Amino acid sequence: MKLWQKNYKLNEEIEKFTVGNDYLIDKNLVKYEVYGSIAHATMLNKIGILSKNELKKLKKALVEIFYGSKKFQIKIEDEDVHTAIENYLIKKLGNLGKKIHTARSRNDQVLVDVRLYSKEKLLEVQKLTLELASALVNIAENYKDTPMPGYTHSRKAMPSSVGLYFGSFAESLIDDLEILEEAYELNNQCPLGSGAGYGLPLNIDRQLVADLLGFERIQNNVLYVQNSRGKFESVIIFALSNIMSDLARLSNDLILFSMDEFGFFTLPDEFCTGSSIMPQKKNPDVLELTRAKAAKVDSNLYLVKSIISKLQSGYTRDFQLTKEPLIESFEITLSTLKIFKIIIEKIKVDKEKCIEACTDDLFATEHAYELVKKGTPFRDAYKEVAKNIENQKIFSKKNFFANVQSKKHVGATGNLGLGKLKQQITLINAEIDAEIRKFYSTMEMLLR
Amino acid sequence: MKLWQKNYKLNEEIEKFTVGNDYLIDKNLVKYEVYGSIAHATMLNKIGILSKNELKKLKKALVEIFYGSKKFQIKIEDEDVHTAIENYLIKKLGNLGKKIHTARSRNDQVLVDVRLYSKEKLLEVQKLTLELASALVNIAENYKDTPMPGYTHSRKAMPSSVGLYFGSFAESLIDDLEILEEAYELNNQCPLGSGAGYGLPLNIDRQLVADLLGFERIQNNVLYVQNSRGKFESVIIFALSNIMSDLARLSNDLILFSMDEFGFFTLPDEFCTGSSIMPQKKNPDVLELTRAKAAKVDSNLYLVKSIISKLQSGYTRDFQLTKEPLIESFEITLSTLKIFKIIIEKIKVDKEKCIEACTDDLFATEHAYELVKKGTPFRDAYKEVAKNIENQKIFSKKNFFANVQSKKHVGATGNLGLGKLKQQITLINAEIDAEIRKFYSTMEMLLR
Amino acid sequence: MKLWQKNYKLNEEIEKFTVGNDYLIDKNLVKYEVYGSIAHATMLNKIGILSKNELKKLKKALVEIFYGSKKFQIKIEDEDVHTAIENYLIKKLGNLGKKIHTARSRNDQVLVDVRLYSKEKLLEVQKLTLELASALVNIAENYKDTPMPGYTHSRKAMPSSVGLYFGSFAESLIDDLEILEEAYELNNQCPLGSGAGYGLPLNIDRQLVADLLGFERIQNNVLYVQNSRGKFESVIIFALSNIMSDLARLSNDLILFSMDEFGFFTLPDEFCTGSSIMPQKKNPDVLELTRAKAAKVDSNLYLVKSIISKLQSGYTRDFQLTKEPLIESFEITLSTLKIFKIIIEKIKVDKEKCIEACTDDLFATEHAYELVKKGTPFRDAYKEVAKNIENQKIFSKKNFFANVQSKKHVGATGNLGLGKLKQQITLINAEIDAEIRKFYSTMEMLLR
Amino acid sequence: MKLWQKNYKLNEEIEKFTVGNDYLIDKNLVKYEVYGSIAHATMLNKIGILSKNELKKLKKALVEIFYGSKKFQIKIEDEDVHTAIENYLIKKLGNLGKKIHTARSRNDQVLVDVRLYSKEKLLEVQKLTLELASALVNIAENYKDTPMPGYTHSRKAMPSSVGLYFGSFAESLIDDLEILEEAYELNNQCPLGSGAGYGLPLNIDRQLVADLLGFERIQNNVLYVQNSRGKFESVIIFALSNIMSDLARLSNDLILFSMDEFGFFTLPDEFCTGSSIMPQKKNPDVLELTRAKAAKVDSNLYLVKSIISKLQSGYTRDFQLTKEPLIESFEITLSTLKIFKIIIEKIKVDKEKCIEACTDDLFATEHAYELVKKGTPFRDAYKEVAKNIENQKIFSKKNFFANVQSKKHVGATGNLGLGKLKQQITLINAEIDAEIRKFYSTMEMLLR
Repeated sequence: MKLWQKNYKLNEEIEKFTVGNDYLIDKNLVKYEVYGSIAHATMLNKIGILSKNELKKLKKALVEIFYGSKKFQIKIEDEDVHTAIENYLIKKLGNLGKKIHTARSRNDQVLVDVRLYSKEKLLEVQKLTLELASALVNIAENYKDTPMPGYTHSRKAMPSSVGLYFGSFAESLIDDLEILEEAYELNNQCPLGSGAGYGLPLNIDRQLVADLLGFERIQNNVLYVQNSRGKFESVIIFALSNIMSDLARLSNDLILFSMDEFGFFTLPDEFCTGSSIMPQKKNPDVLELTRAKAAKVDSNLYLVKSIISKLQSGYTRDFQLTKEPLIESFEITLSTLKIFKIIIEKIKVDKEKCIEACTDDLFATEHAYELVKKGTPFRDAYKEVAKNIENQKIFSKKNFFANVQSKKHVGATGNLGLGKLKQQITLINAEIDAEIRKFYSTMEMLLR
Repeated sequence: MKLWQKNYKLNEEIEKFTVGNDYLIDKNLVKYEVYGSIAHATMLNKIGILSKNELKKLKKALVEIFYGSKKFQIKIEDEDVHTAIENYLIKKLGNLGKKIHTARSRNDQVLVDVRLYSKEKLLEVQKLTLELASALVNIAENYKDTPMPGYTHSRKAMPSSVGLYFGSFAESLIDDLEILEEAYELNNQCPLGSGAGYGLPLNIDRQLVADLLGFERIQNNVLYVQNSRGKFESVIIFALSNIMSDLARLSNDLILFSMDEFGFFTLPDEFCTGSSIMPQKKNPDVLELTRAKAAKVDSNLYLVKSIISKLQSGYTRDFQLTKEPLIESFEITLSTLKIFKIIIEKIKVDKEKCIEACTDDLFATEHAYELVKKGTPFRDAYKEVAKNIENQKIFSKKNFFANVQSKKHVGATGNLGLGKLKQQITLINAEIDAEIRKFYSTMEMLLR
Repeated sequence: MKLWQKNYKLNEEIEKFTVGNDYLIDKNLVKYEVYGSIAHATMLNKIGILSKNELKKLKKALVEIFYGSKKFQIKIEDEDVHTAIENYLIKKLGNLGKKIHTARSRNDQVLVDVRLYSKEKLLEVQKLTLELASALVNIAENYKDTPMPGYTHSRKAMPSSVGLYFGSFAESLIDDLEILEEAYELNNQCPLGSGAGYGLPLNIDRQLVADLLGFERIQNNVLYVQNSRGKFESVIIFALSNIMSDLARLSNDLILFSMDEFGFFTLPDEFCTGSSIMPQKKNPDVLELTRAKAAKVDSNLYLVKSIISKLQSGYTRDFQLTKEPLIESFEITLSTLKIFKIIIEKIKVDKEKCIEACTDDLFATEHAYELVKKGTPFRDAYKEVAKNIENQKIFSKKNFFANVQSKKHVGATGNLGLGKLKQQITLINAEIDAEIRKFYSTMEMLLR
Repeated sequence: MKLWQKNYKLNEEIEKFTVGNDYLIDKNLVKYEVYGSIAHATMLNKIGILSKNELKKLKKALVEIFYGSKKFQIKIEDEDVHTAIENYLIKKLGNLGKKIHTARSRNDQVLVDVRLYSKEKLLEVQKLTLELASALVNIAENYKDTPMPGYTHSRKAMPSSVGLYFGSFAESLIDDLEILEEAYELNNQCPLGSGAGYGLPLNIDRQLVADLLGFERIQNNVLYVQNSRGKFESVIIFALSNIMSDLARLSNDLILFSMDEFGFFTLPDEFCTGSSIMPQKKNPDVLELTRAKAAKVDSNLYLVKSIISKLQSGYTRDFQLTKEPLIESFEITLSTLKIFKIIIEKIKVDKEKCIEACTDDLFATEHAYELVKKGTPFRDAYKEVAKNIENQKIFSKKNFFANVQSKKHVGATGNLGLGKLKQQITLINAEIDAEIRKFYSTMEMLLR
């Protein structure tokens, strides 16, 4: 039964069309709905709507749902998780169940569910990002002196190193973490108490609810609470899309650099799939799919921004379709981060192929700088070297190992700054661990 | 078991990551895989790879799958529908089952499945679009003389009519049908025989397969066959997105025009949902969701175009993620078209509210034209009227009914051209019915 | 002065904000505005609003603008091309100039301008696409027997040929032409006479105007005319985006295949730019930029679809921003097509490198088929070959030339179907030439 | 002349195609190129590449360019601002000019230009956002007790207030500022010294350059510097897009609420444009264009993300096309913020219309809560009221003023928290002012 059931029946086609797969998606939200409901009931008790005993009974029933009561499920007629839980409570507790909806609306309930869900998932993403960054720092360290060609315009350009290569992705992920952190903070605002978007004619205590749920602060203006739906989701998905873009670029590189024509890196067999027709093939499917999955997260960002564009202020049903892209983006990002940690740990670097690819033309710029050091203005030195190359006056074989180690300025191959990176990772890790502990202890407290 | 199974086991995490929900999505493709396999086997018999008896056995087993053999299912270890069916055939027919993959690759199998699926769905979409266009023509006809304000810049502008309003959407859908028809033709090319994208070292008969499956023509260059993956999907999704954009705009209008502040149209109760907190609410959720679902289809277009951008020629696994947005876009468009047919048939027009909203300022342009008819140059007439409005010399109440009927030029309120539209609809309908009959009789022939 | 100038002055900041760069963009539309105005005036004469002499004078002044009268320019205060021309006519012809706006609105004027502009540009695009397709067929023919590796998953897969490679793009462009043709037909509808979207209180002759301007048909419903703004633009940009996607993929391939690590193709020096710091570099900038420009056209599609989403029926100012993405998409596509014709004509194929890259593993599938021909079921043959590869039992060097020629089925390397393609190109070319002649002769007629 | 000029001439078509409108866009970057060059030269002096006297001469010439030397301009043959400046210096200073490119590449120069440009523009955006937030707080305060209907699903839902309405946008902008601040910090990393992406064979002092230019820190890994191109731009554009989305929603609301059918708000005449055909019209073009411009910024985000997707690590020319969307997004956001400050300051609130629109059905929820207060469980109270409404037992006229003031919980109409908001604005304002002072004093220091 629907919460708003009146004396007419919804057209069945309409029901299917409006509920969509919400009743399935909302399975992801059950536990957060329980948290939110317990905090809400606790507040209702404090302001005198529920007696101590009523609170106790409601809490007991909600905890049952949390621990997977078999009687609880979300059916298509229920529309959503909020209704399913209210119906369960009414069935179990009678009139008492009918009180739980006092001073709230599905509009602020879904918001609190999504915020708590996002909090937990963002913490997971941050944790996994750090682990991957660590794995990248490790491989960079292991191969910090291994030369490989540096490319610009997809052409060999200057000497580079395997250390510089993998280090670049570690740093990129650290920047991504800052953006994730900002999304986390934005999301850390309690929406409960905004009701349908216009507050409630009861003197509710929004601060208590926010504290019980571990939110950093109340999201103040009750209309803004509704208007921020979709917006916060887009900020989160954008933060995730940065990570996925990094991993897509890494995938694209690895596909290229593991081609027979390069051979710098090899994916272990267990990461490769075969062909149904060509017996010799070992294909880097996981890397190819990562590119496509990054596109999926980008399209989810586009989707959420499209959905909320040009909407009238206040809740509208369009918002319903913002849940799936959010949840899906989290699932994609989490699984891809997990996979990449394994990939980076197991990928093989073929040092010989890397060095072999370091041909003498990579030294052209170095030659110019040798002339600069002898006093030739750079642009003249450049032209001198260019002329020699065109006249095929080739330079003698160079020592790439020495070259890679010789570049000592900040961030260059001989000075990768991996130590600093490790410190940063340790520091952020400690902060996130603290936040994770806080999150789980707050939630456990609610269930007690 | 995988078709390419070698002496190493795929990492379990990798397996989950690469298969994704393909084994679920591919349920949509089973029947087309059967069609394709029967046509392919028939060809193998013709070129001497299969004996007549072998063909008969294979066909029998395939028909069983078609009619839902309980032994057949797609498991996650199977990766996809192609593997599931080959495994089923091998289990049932032994060595004979191992022959079915001769002269084909999963790369061209998935293409033929998606093409046949799209053919059938495009025909459904065209049929439903015509039905909705008919419903729109009907309501336009019923209210062809009912005045309502015409808006520009969301401001009352000139006299319009309910007939003109609904007629505009009918014509838009007719244009959309042309784009659908183009997508249908593009899709009507047989990809089988391209193998993995580089043809096959057997003298296969591609024309026979194309004929058996009812394709208009062979898609020639075997590499282009692979490179067209995602491209054809994007053309189809774009065609669907035009319909959804029309319905989203219609939804947006209807949400506005059914507000109490307007009241031109009323959605029957059975199409409206309620609020969990506000007892008085009847909400146009179905219209709001249509807007969001149109955004979803747009995002699917964006997704497919992103996935295929900057891919190296030849099959790559990225393509796998083009199936879901295609199928989802079809499902959204089909269900929305069905819903809108009901909505347009049941929506109530409040003639009085429509007329009441026709205030005198709508006549300003008509006043200018009265002066034009008396010889004043238009720009002077315009200024004269503008000045009078600013000085609040209001004009006497006008007869909007007469006005609406009086505009007789092509496409205006007094000459909506609904008769022509109906003829067009009838014509296209006949063509589509013929194509539908052809499609189903071809497919039935295969199963015999 | 603005056409709607009243007794208040627009805030200057607002003026800048609203006009934007419209007065610049509209330079592209001047000649079409002249065509539209002459046709409109001719019709006004026919229905008695303008005398024969008045028509003559107006036409003379309009033709002056067409041929670049120095007195005519679009200033920011004019807002747009429509106003600039009306102001010019009033300045030159006094009261007569004030009559030209009779029975039209800027809303239908801009539509006719954009439609005529798009017609001419679409014909140019079609012409250039055919030329590029021809160049691709030529290079495919010249190298039809040159083997090169066929890749799947960015891994060497099976023997392919340079002919198959370039032929695949020729066929893709031919398919793109069909989509362009559909866009052309959709666009070939005359919007004039719809006024501001609600028709006109005069008995105008829309058919005459459509005929004079060479449109295939009248766009009927006057409200749909307005509602189709942005929609038609999106259909056109989508058609252009298919071409750009093809050229972006071709670019991506050529960047890869011209790397030293492959060396299959070489871009002549005059197509490459250098580095400011690395003297040895020759960079494929034109190919890289093509990828980025394809993304630009895709973003223009997204932009137009976003702008028109959720708009209320009837003209709204949002439409103004659909002009720039359309014009820009045409300019990008036209210039890229021109460049690619030159590139394909001048690119060098290094046959030796192509053959050298054809390593024996490409033959694995062929080996399996040899076993198939001897009676082994395909799946067993596959496993047999796979096992031999893993045990490093390598097969003897194969003749790739013979192999490429031996695959004779439709669309394979030994049967590319280039002759059929040439016929198709010739046929379409003749149709487009006829349409081009018709377009220009119609327009010249108007100016006489 | 190009920096890399060799003994071949670039094909002219190619030159046009590759340079595009870069030579125009780069005008925006001249002053930042000067800043970067002075800092770079100062460092070259410190490490002994330039003498004190040489530094002095170079600085003098660069300062001339900064102050608009007429001899300096960017021509199409120059390709870009970097080349134009180097050419100017060589022409003026001969051999000395040829030294300026020592230890840098256009690849890191363009990055520093774009970073400094973005720094300055982000500060402007933040400043204007605060001003607009202030204006919104003011109007919210002025009308904090004015009732207006609160809408959900575009239907009247519950009592709201003009104060709540405008306050919601103020808070949204404050959240946007946090995202802007994050983008600012990310952007505050010095890229100079990364060269072409692989560092330099000279012992350069990256910290000195970063300090001279006022960057918070060095961006470490030299390859990541290149790989972050486009990424940082996308983070900035996303931050801008949040502001534009807010303003687009506000626009959409204001278009609706200023319709005659509502009349809550009136835009002053000087903000409205007229129609060329309908004398009575006053159109909210500026609001409509804001919606479209928000779509433009979104499409720029999509564009930048598309351009950088699937690029090989290291500089590629594709990046060139990321400049325009960034600059354009800044220009759009800055001009829209300016306009909205004026709009919010001048918009008229029609209190009577607002109150008149507050019909009794808005009280349904309040009625339910009255029953709740008397002990009825909420769900029963809801049903009771719903039944009464359907039976048309209408409730007596309510005092909306009292109601609006009575809701005292955090963030509700009687407790808007505007004081807290003002404090926040003051605080952030002080921080930004400090940052602005620091930016300009650092830059002035360089020119001395």
